[in-house]
Amino acid sequence: MVYLTRKAEFAASHYYHNPEFTPEQNRALFGKCNNPNGHGHNYTLEVTVKGSVDPTSGFVVDLKQLKDVMNREVLDAMDHRFLNKEVPEFLHQIPTTENIAIAIWQRLAPKLKAAQLHRVRVYETPDLFVDFYGEA
Amino acid sequence: MVYLTRKAEFAASHYYHNPEFTPEQNRALFGKCNNPNGHGHNYTLEVTVKGSVDPTSGFVVDLKQLKDVMNREVLDAMDHRFLNKEVPEFLHQIPTTENIAIAIWQRLAPKLKAAQLHRVRVYETPDLFVDFYGEA
Amino acid sequence: MVYLTRKAEFAASHYYHNPEFTPEQNRALFGKCNNPNGHGHNYTLEVTVKGSVDPTSGFVVDLKQLKDVMNREVLDAMDHRFLNKEVPEFLHQIPTTENIAIAIWQRLAPKLKAAQLHRVRVYETPDLFVDFYGEA
Amino acid sequence: MVYLTRKAEFAASHYYHNPEFTPEQNRALFGKCNNPNGHGHNYTLEVTVKGSVDPTSGFVVDLKQLKDVMNREVLDAMDHRFLNKEVPEFLHQIPTTENIAIAIWQRLAPKLKAAQLHRVRVYETPDLFVDFYGEA
Amino acid sequence: MVYLTRKAEFAASHYYHNPEFTPEQNRALFGKCNNPNGHGHNYTLEVTVKGSVDPTSGFVVDLKQLKDVMNREVLDAMDHRFLNKEVPEFLHQIPTTENIAIAIWQRLAPKLKAAQLHRVRVYETPDLFVDFYGEA
Amino acid sequence: MVYLTRKAEFAASHYYHNPEFTPEQNRALFGKCNNPNGHGHNYTLEVTVKGSVDPTSGFVVDLKQLKDVMNREVLDAMDHRFLNKEVPEFLHQIPTTENIAIAIWQRLAPKLKAAQLHRVRVYETPDLFVDFYGEA
Repeated sequence: MVYLTRKAEFAASHYYHNPEFTPEQNRALFGKCNNPNGHGHNYTLEVTVKGSVDPTSGFVVDLKQLKDVMNREVLDAMDHRFLNKEVPEFLHQIPTTENIAIAIWQRLAPKLKAAQLHRVRVYETPDLFVDFYGEA
Repeated sequence: MVYLTRKAEFAASHYYHNPEFTPEQNRALFGKCNNPNGHGHNYTLEVTVKGSVDPTSGFVVDLKQLKDVMNREVLDAMDHRFLNKEVPEFLHQIPTTENIAIAIWQRLAPKLKAAQLHRVRVYETPDLFVDFYGEA
Repeated sequence: MVYLTRKAEFAASHYYHNPEFTPEQNRALFGKCNNPNGHGHNYTLEVTVKGSVDPTSGFVVDLKQLKDVMNREVLDAMDHRFLNKEVPEFLHQIPTTENIAIAIWQRLAPKLKAAQLHRVRVYETPDLFVDFYGEA
Repeated sequence: MVYLTRKAEFAASHYYHNPEFTPEQNRALFGKCNNPNGHGHNYTLEVTVKGSVDPTSGFVVDLKQLKDVMNREVLDAMDHRFLNKEVPEFLHQIPTTENIAIAIWQRLAPKLKAAQLHRVRVYETPDLFVDFYGEA
Repeated sequence: MVYLTRKAEFAASHYYHNPEFTPEQNRALFGKCNNPNGHGHNYTLEVTVKGSVDPTSGFVVDLKQLKDVMNREVLDAMDHRFLNKEVPEFLHQIPTTENIAIAIWQRLAPKLKAAQLHRVRVYETPDLFVDFYGEA
Repeated sequence: MVYLTRKAEFAASHYYHNPEFTPEQNRALFGKCNNPNGHGHNYTLEVTVKGSVDPTSGFVVDLKQLKDVMNREVLDAMDHRFLNKEVPEFLHQIPTTENIAIAIWQRLAPKLKAAQLHRVRVYETPDLFVDFYGEA
C-alpha cells in the first residue's frame, strides 16, 4: 500500500459572505474577505491516492489519468474563475478553503478508478491549508 | 553601499481587458485572463532599497519605517482588492504584472527617505515575476 | 471533519546541555549544539486543528481566534528569546525540537475551543522537523 | 510519542521499461520516461521515525546516527547513480517513485534501533511524491 | 523598461568527462559526477527578457509566445534526455551548469522578437545556479 | 563571463545593541532584537563568483574549492555561534544582516582565486535579505 500525491495550482477569486447575516455581522466575522468585488489566491491543490503497486508498471496509479481527472474535474472548473459566481458548489455555499477542499473531494472521488482517493489538501496561501479525508 | 530587500504578500483579483479591442481580440490576446468576473493571485512583492550602512545602527534603512511605508502605500491599497475596480492606477490601465510593478514603484519612490528605492519585484505566481528599476 | 493548518515563524536561540553529564559527555552527544552561548534558528510552527465545518461561516475555526491563541501562548513567549533562559519549560528541560513541540502542544491544547488540536509540527530547519499529536 | 523527520537529497537517473511489453506498449504507458538513455531528478527523501523522548537527551533519535544510516544505506547507493543499472533492487524492477520509496524502507527499517521507522517519503519533483508506511 | 522572468523545469541526466584527461584526472576533478552511466537533476530554468511595456496589452512580451519559444527551443530538446548523448551542444562539450546556461542563451536569443533576452539562469539544484547575460 | 552561485546555511544567534545609546534609545530603535540574551536565525548565504568558463573543465570555478573556502572562512566561524560574543567582527560592531554580508565579503574576497567574488547575499529570514557587491 503506497500513497501518491500530485500537486497542481489554480488561480481564482472569491469572497466570504453569508446572506443571512447583517452587513455588520459579515464584516465582523469575515473582515476584508467580505469585500464583494472579490480578491484572489494562487491555490495549491494536493491530491493523494492510495493503492497497491501494479508490478507490471511500478505505478499505484497512471499519472496521465490522474492528471486528466484533476484537470477535467477541478482545474477546468475553478482556474481563472470567480468561485462565488461561476462554480456551482459556491453559488449557495461560502467558498472557504474548508468548503473548497470538500467540493474537490466530491468531484474527484467518483472519477478515480484503480487507486482510491485518500486526501485532498488545499493551500489558500503558503501559510494556510486544509486537509479533507472524506470523513463524515 | 548595500542593498536590502523586504518581501510582503497580498491577495488580489484582476482581469485583462482593453476596451478598444473587440471581444475576439481580447479573448485571443488575453485568453482566460479576459474573464470579466476576475480571478486572483497571492502576489509576492519584493522591495529593494540601497544606501550606505549607518554605523550607529548597522542599518541601511529602519525596517519598521520600510514596513510602514510598504503597508500604507501598497498593501492597504491592493490587498484583498479587485485591482481593476478599486485601485486608481488600474481604472484605465490593464493590471498586468508589469503595470503593477511600475505602479508600486511610483507609490514607494517618493516616500522613502534615508535609503533609495532600487528595485520592485512582483511575483504573480512562483513561476512568473517582473522587475522594475525606475528606468524610463 | 476537516483539518486546518496555520503556519507561523519565530526566531529563537537555544543550546543543548544536560547538567548531569560530564563536559565530555555533553560534547560527545550534542556536538556544536552544546555551545553555552547559544545559537539560533528561524523555527516554523504548523498548528493543525480538526473539527466539522460550521455551515454559517464555512469555517472549522475562526482564523482570527486561532492566530490570537498562537500569538499569545507561543510567539509572545518564544519569539526573540533564548529558550534555555527565558521560557519556563526549558529552565530544567533541554529545548530540543521534540521538547519544543510537546511544550507548544501543552500551551495550545487547553486554549482551543471550537476546534480540537490535532498536531503540532515544528521545523528547526527546512530539513528537520518534529510532529506531536498529544499521544502519551 | 513524537515523530521526527529528516530530509536529504540525491541526484540520480532512471528510465521506465518493462521487458515483457512490446516497444509500443512501453511507449504508450511510459511516454518520454521510456527513453533508455535515462533522464534524472533531484530526489528529496524524507525519513520519519517515531518513539518516545529520551529524558536525558531530549531526543527521540540520535540525529548523527540517523544521518549515518541514511547516508550509508541510501545515499551512498543511489546518489549520482543510474538506478536501473547500478542499484540492485532496480536491475529487475522498474525504478518508479513508488518502488524507490519501498526499496528505501526495506534498506532502512532493519538498521534503525532506538526509534522505529514510520514513513518514507520520496519526491521525484516538487509536484510529485510517494509515501510508504511499510503496510503490506 | 521592465524585466519579465518565466520559470520552467526539465529533468535530464548528464555526466562530466574530458576525453583528453586520464581516468585519474577525470576522477580527481569531477568526482562522482564522472560516473559514465550518468545521474540526473530537475533543472530549473529562468528566462528573463527586457523591453518596454506595450500600452495596448500591458505586456513586455506575449507570454504564450515566450512559453512556445522556451518549449520548442529548450524543453523539447533537453527534457527527459541524457544531455551528453542526445543534445548536440554536449556531444563534444561538458554539460556543466555553466555550459547549459550558455547553450540555452544561444538557442533562445535569435528566436525572441519583441523583447530582448536579458538573462538565462539555470539551477542544477536548489543550492547551485548559474547566470549568463550573453557577455563575451 | 558567467556567474555561479552556491548557497549554504548557518544557524547563529545575535542581538542588536549600541553601547553609546541609552537603554531607551536601544529599545526604541532595536525593539525585541535588543534582548541581550540573543535570539537566532537560520541564515542562508549565497556566494556568487564570476569568470570565464575553463574549456577543459566547463567550470568557472572548482566547486570543491569554493565549498572549502566558504566552509573554512565563514561557516566554521559563524555556524552555531553567538555572533556578538564569538565572531571578531561583531565584538565592536552590530551584527545586522548588512554588517554580516560585508564581513562575509571581506573574509571571502582575498581567498578566491580563479574566479572573482561578485556578490554576497545573506537571508536573515526568507522575507529579508541583503546584497553586497564590494562597492564602497
